[in-house]
Amino acid sequence: MPAAPDLPAAFAPPPQPSPRSDVEIYRMWEIYKAVNARVKAGGEVVNLLVGEPTLPPSPKVVAAASRALSDGRTIGYTEALGMPSLREGIAQLYRRRHGLDIPAARIAVTVGTSSGLLLAFLAAFEAGQTVAVVEPSYPAYRGTLKAVNLVPYRLGTDAATRYQVTPAMIDALPPEVAGVVVASPANPTGTMLTAAELKAIHAACRRRGLWLIVDELYHGVTYDRPADTALAAGDDVIVINGFSKFWGMTGWRIGWLVLPERLVPRIEALHGSLQISAPTLSQIAAIAALETDDEMTARVSAYARNRDALLAALPRFGITRFAPPDGAFYLYADIGDFTDDSVAFCRRMLDETGVVTAPGVDFDTMQGRHYLRFSFCMDEAVVAEAIRRLESWFAAQNRR
Amino acid sequence: MPAAPDLPAAFAPPPQPSPRSDVEIYRMWEIYKAVNARVKAGGEVVNLLVGEPTLPPSPKVVAAASRALSDGRTIGYTEALGMPSLREGIAQLYRRRHGLDIPAARIAVTVGTSSGLLLAFLAAFEAGQTVAVVEPSYPAYRGTLKAVNLVPYRLGTDAATRYQVTPAMIDALPPEVAGVVVASPANPTGTMLTAAELKAIHAACRRRGLWLIVDELYHGVTYDRPADTALAAGDDVIVINGFSKFWGMTGWRIGWLVLPERLVPRIEALHGSLQISAPTLSQIAAIAALETDDEMTARVSAYARNRDALLAALPRFGITRFAPPDGAFYLYADIGDFTDDSVAFCRRMLDETGVVTAPGVDFDTMQGRHYLRFSFCMDEAVVAEAIRRLESWFAAQNRR
Repeated sequence: MPAAPDLPAAFAPPPQPSPRSDVEIYRMWEIYKAVNARVKAGGEVVNLLVGEPTLPPSPKVVAAASRALSDGRTIGYTEALGMPSLREGIAQLYRRRHGLDIPAARIAVTVGTSSGLLLAFLAAFEAGQTVAVVEPSYPAYRGTLKAVNLVPYRLGTDAATRYQVTPAMIDALPPEVAGVVVASPANPTGTMLTAAELKAIHAACRRRGLWLIVDELYHGVTYDRPADTALAAGDDVIVINGFSKFWGMTGWRIGWLVLPERLVPRIEALHGSLQISAPTLSQIAAIAALETDDEMTARVSAYARNRDALLAALPRFGITRFAPPDGAFYLYADIGDFTDDSVAFCRRMLDETGVVTAPGVDFDTMQGRHYLRFSFCMDEAVVAEAIRRLESWFAAQNRR
Repeated sequence: MPAAPDLPAAFAPPPQPSPRSDVEIYRMWEIYKAVNARVKAGGEVVNLLVGEPTLPPSPKVVAAASRALSDGRTIGYTEALGMPSLREGIAQLYRRRHGLDIPAARIAVTVGTSSGLLLAFLAAFEAGQTVAVVEPSYPAYRGTLKAVNLVPYRLGTDAATRYQVTPAMIDALPPEVAGVVVASPANPTGTMLTAAELKAIHAACRRRGLWLIVDELYHGVTYDRPADTALAAGDDVIVINGFSKFWGMTGWRIGWLVLPERLVPRIEALHGSLQISAPTLSQIAAIAALETDDEMTARVSAYARNRDALLAALPRFGITRFAPPDGAFYLYADIGDFTDDSVAFCRRMLDETGVVTAPGVDFDTMQGRHYLRFSFCMDEAVVAEAIRRLESWFAAQNRR
């Protein structure tokens, strides 16, 4: 028998990315790239796109972080659930804001609110389960659910309920739903749930044995009344919060969870494996941030003036369908009289006026094509200039 | 018919934590708590437990972070994949260390190595798949796999292969395995794979169509020869690295991934949803850290002296089965002559000598009960004192 030829080693087809990692890229990035291209070409941009406060951190925050840097200690890991003094400081925040006694033991410090969301989803839900998410809402809810093999159930809302969920909607959820995610104040609408509404939603979830996850990241950024917390409704709510918005500390990546007791050991173990601990310098800075209520509330007054200016301007633009925001720094407006393609509309607005806003499609997969989100956490002069430019532009737009 | 009694609302049983979040808590925490209790009671502790360099960050790192704080800018989000200058700096590191041309476009900046691991697992594997993990190894591999519904296949190794995987072991993996995780230098053993070994492992994975994930976090912390990178073997390896060990920046939570091109958009979308971006101040500090090679290499010289001291001392303790570490700052030793319960042994050692080390059970679920990990990233005086105390103590121990 002849010798076998010297065959090359057999190779299997190369491994491919997982289906769960096929997370949607926000359409907002497309707009963001157009903004960068415009700036690069020397064009002006009046930016109402992003939800990032543009002021630097409080001097107290800067001082605390600088001190930690200059005192020559190691910047090492902390406890998985966070520095005890930060957890205690957050517990005191609930006492101060809401008169609630939340034990620090139920608080977990996370790498931003994003990480809090991920840990909550992992701890509460098993792969394959279905989770109801209000639409419109923050797009990372859906991205994160998909990444950890959860199926979003889209709970469409409209101006009739101020884009919030009602207990009747929870009662009507199909049997496969295992939990509900709501936000108050919400992104992109800024609408809030009252204490009574939160209590009723909580009761509806309890009747069904559903996990209730409430995103309270925009607490503190409120206008006519302070935000109520879902924690007043009971101990078995998962609350997500962080330092990015009221305290303007986005890039510090520091958030927290308030957990039902039975989830604490799970979150501790998950956090220990998945992150070890939140960034230490950011934790030290966050402790200082908790002492800056007055300074940050003054910033909210500037957002309030921006909100009022936009609320007055929108009807002059011909936009009449929107819910005035109770909090956060967004105004979500129905532009269905002008377009059914919010992405193209945003791009054209940018090209023709230099003003940029977010298209609704990222927040609402069903109705977002005829919505815009105006962000107003920027300087008052920026919002005023945007209004000036948009007023004449909208007047020249065809109505459908 | 009588009216129905006014029944209380029916409540379903409260929702419970997910099975996937039932991640093992490291036994090391038990030891850690015993250490804290001892310190609280006024006792001394000579700590060889943790893998955290105890020196403060480089003055250059401190200066860069301080400057970013004092210049009054917002500390905002960065691009999801990280600041372009940091990604470029990391690309240059591969040119400098390995003569390799890795495009910055294949580099993703992550929230520590932990987050890099999580993102890599999500992007490469679908829920339910099996991933081979060398044992002994870093326990968070198994915790993270479990949290995202992956099944660890335990690839037991021993001193015969210096606790590393061989191509033959990969050839013999059962068909359900979808990928392999290795580390070089490894935690807890400090052993390395040569360029030829990495190439052969890579070829074995290619033959089977397996993802190969290589943890290179301890690169730079090496003794007799520099570490080789798996990236030299080909572009379709997933490499994990970070600033925690060589640069001693554990609490900054900053790491990176080098990715095959087809995974880059997946990691970008996942990172955007799951984390937004890595902490900005830490990214700025990391750019500065890349300029501190000489300073950090001097720190490694101190670890080398600790390593030599331990290598000389262990036989005097009666411990003769261990692989001398090529890198990292750990020595993993078989104490089977003394005990079959490394946790109890560690606790007794702590109680009787004040010296604390890590029990092997966290690193190796099968054999760890008769192993200890000595960490030696601490001051030379600490290691010398540990040796002094342990020498007489081991002499008094019964052999099995």
